[in-house]
Amino acid sequence: MRILGIDPGLGNTGYGIIDDRDFSVIEAGVIKTKSNTPIQTRIKKIFDEISSIIAEHKPGVLVLEKIYSHYKHPTTAILMGHARAMACLVCGEFDIKLVNYPSTKIKKAVTGNGHASKYQVQRMVKDALKLKYLPAPVDVSDALAMAISYCLIEKRKV
Amino acid sequence: MRILGIDPGLGNTGYGIIDDRDFSVIEAGVIKTKSNTPIQTRIKKIFDEISSIIAEHKPGVLVLEKIYSHYKHPTTAILMGHARAMACLVCGEFDIKLVNYPSTKIKKAVTGNGHASKYQVQRMVKDALKLKYLPAPVDVSDALAMAISYCLIEKRKV
Repeated sequence: MRILGIDPGLGNTGYGIIDDRDFSVIEAGVIKTKSNTPIQTRIKKIFDEISSIIAEHKPGVLVLEKIYSHYKHPTTAILMGHARAMACLVCGEFDIKLVNYPSTKIKKAVTGNGHASKYQVQRMVKDALKLKYLPAPVDVSDALAMAISYCLIEKRKV
Repeated sequence: MRILGIDPGLGNTGYGIIDDRDFSVIEAGVIKTKSNTPIQTRIKKIFDEISSIIAEHKPGVLVLEKIYSHYKHPTTAILMGHARAMACLVCGEFDIKLVNYPSTKIKKAVTGNGHASKYQVQRMVKDALKLKYLPAPVDVSDALAMAISYCLIEKRKV
């Protein structure tokens, strides 16, 4: 089965799809929108691109980070919520299983440490997926970490 | 022209459409979703219902309240952002003009006081639209106030 992790943001939405049989990366990247573009156009771009990724790769599960309540920048958090909603809507539209884990659970599953740094996550994602290079930017490594964590958590490997 | 105001919330999304020629109410109501329903189903319901309203009534403009940064409950604010994103996406999908005003600007336009209470807004919406009863719940009166404020602000009547 294919697992899609999404790290949503209005400006940068990272995504990564892996195959849970061999931990290969099917596709990963960042959906970018410009801050000088009207919000409805940005939102629609995120929706359309996630829809295309799902139509092409047919993941069985979409993994998001759970919402927490201690964001430093409330406005940014609400705009992240706008982007996150596109991932939720796509799950509704395509009838895909949606799971969300607390950030600490994802980090714990992937690195063994619930408070690992972004860099530690990148290193462990690189190892788990046998990549030649560190996955970057962190929007992508975080999205891949979400997909990996699902395999590890759901299969009781951790 | 018809103006659609939307007061988004994951549980209750108020909406109200008015005609700017005679300040008549075309339709108003609340899109409700239950907290025990999966988020992707709730989000899709909000998207589908806003889409239906727009397909039926063809508003020329959709009015939202601007995001501000001092929410008491960050998680609720982010979930509001999920619902708000559906209104943005629908504008993108249907190519509808989207405007957003600060809450104080809407209240000022409708009541003369940027810090009016919900009840004062209800009273002034009732008067402006010549309703027999106070519009309720406040999700609806706030949505109607947004639609009214557009007419007043854009037509330089205030």
